[in-house]
Amino acid sequence: MYTLYDFLPSGNGYKVRLILNRLNLPYKYIEKNILADETKTEKFLRLNSSGRIPLLQLENGECLAESNAILMYLAEGSPLLPTDRLEKARVLQWLFFEQYSHEPNIAVVRFWMTHGGPTDAQTAQLASKMDAGYAALAVMETQLQQTEFLVGTSFTVADIALYAYTHVAHEGGFDLSDFPAVSEWLFRVQAQPGYTLITDIK
Amino acid sequence: MYTLYDFLPSGNGYKVRLILNRLNLPYKYIEKNILADETKTEKFLRLNSSGRIPLLQLENGECLAESNAILMYLAEGSPLLPTDRLEKARVLQWLFFEQYSHEPNIAVVRFWMTHGGPTDAQTAQLASKMDAGYAALAVMETQLQQTEFLVGTSFTVADIALYAYTHVAHEGGFDLSDFPAVSEWLFRVQAQPGYTLITDIK
Repeated sequence: MYTLYDFLPSGNGYKVRLILNRLNLPYKYIEKNILADETKTEKFLRLNSSGRIPLLQLENGECLAESNAILMYLAEGSPLLPTDRLEKARVLQWLFFEQYSHEPNIAVVRFWMTHGGPTDAQTAQLASKMDAGYAALAVMETQLQQTEFLVGTSFTVADIALYAYTHVAHEGGFDLSDFPAVSEWLFRVQAQPGYTLITDIK
Repeated sequence: MYTLYDFLPSGNGYKVRLILNRLNLPYKYIEKNILADETKTEKFLRLNSSGRIPLLQLENGECLAESNAILMYLAEGSPLLPTDRLEKARVLQWLFFEQYSHEPNIAVVRFWMTHGGPTDAQTAQLASKMDAGYAALAVMETQLQQTEFLVGTSFTVADIALYAYTHVAHEGGFDLSDFPAVSEWLFRVQAQPGYTLITDIK
């Protein structure tokens, strides 16, 4: 059985919970409170030298970090990952876009706003982060006006990865009303088998 | 033949040039000056709605964005990408680490320092970016003290991705003298067949 080290409010962790539930893979859940630096202990750093959750531990004890690498690992051989070379690369294109252009803006602003911010230092960066977050949503909107899911007609791990922080973007103050295709896609993801809320472990 | 839209000083573009040269794949190079917003034109945005280089155009006209997705696409079926499921996931773990924890700090500070910065706004973020950049180098050092390349004994696209901005980290003011395993690994990458400088197109 897999062991998932995670922090419940984390969208990155939620991605992994979503795919484990979708694929009916049982797992043991171990909460690590990142606000109390529980991922910076010597013991945890031996599992993941980056000191971050989510971390997936395999049955043989080996650990895998980086939420989107975990998604790709678990999706292999399932309908959540295309086998066509270019389609698989398009899934990866969205996963890297998520970590570079979406998460550092939309997730980070949400974290600030839901954890006592913004501080003065955060306020200085807020406008540029909001602009960049809206630009990321616009890229998604362009795609979702053309296709049902991010990579064509099939639900893939790209949808899981982008859903995680998009569906809570409003907690950071993002208004999705100018992104109708994104908003409709959120409902399509929620209608998928095995869907669970970010507040639920299973 | 592939067409690569790129900007010569870009480490993200350099990754793609390195793998194309390593795999002896001929390509047409088209320079887009990002400083003159040449990737924000209506024509370019039709190719890549993110408005970013590098962008790889396939023979059939389809375009693929995100440097690390392009690396994975080109590496498929070559010795640069392991076929073992967990080893492949470890390559991806490094690629996501690069885009989230390494590039936004080491590459961004280098960009600031080599393009007339730091401005006042950049100075306000400089200490935290330098700290995060050094933390990323420390994660690499921990791994490279144990293995010859980032994923074991074989040179993979993980090494190409992390090499691109690590080898020019000093241009941002990063001092690698406390990272001996990283420094030796840089030489091992430079000794790889097909290696070219970041200033060379071929």
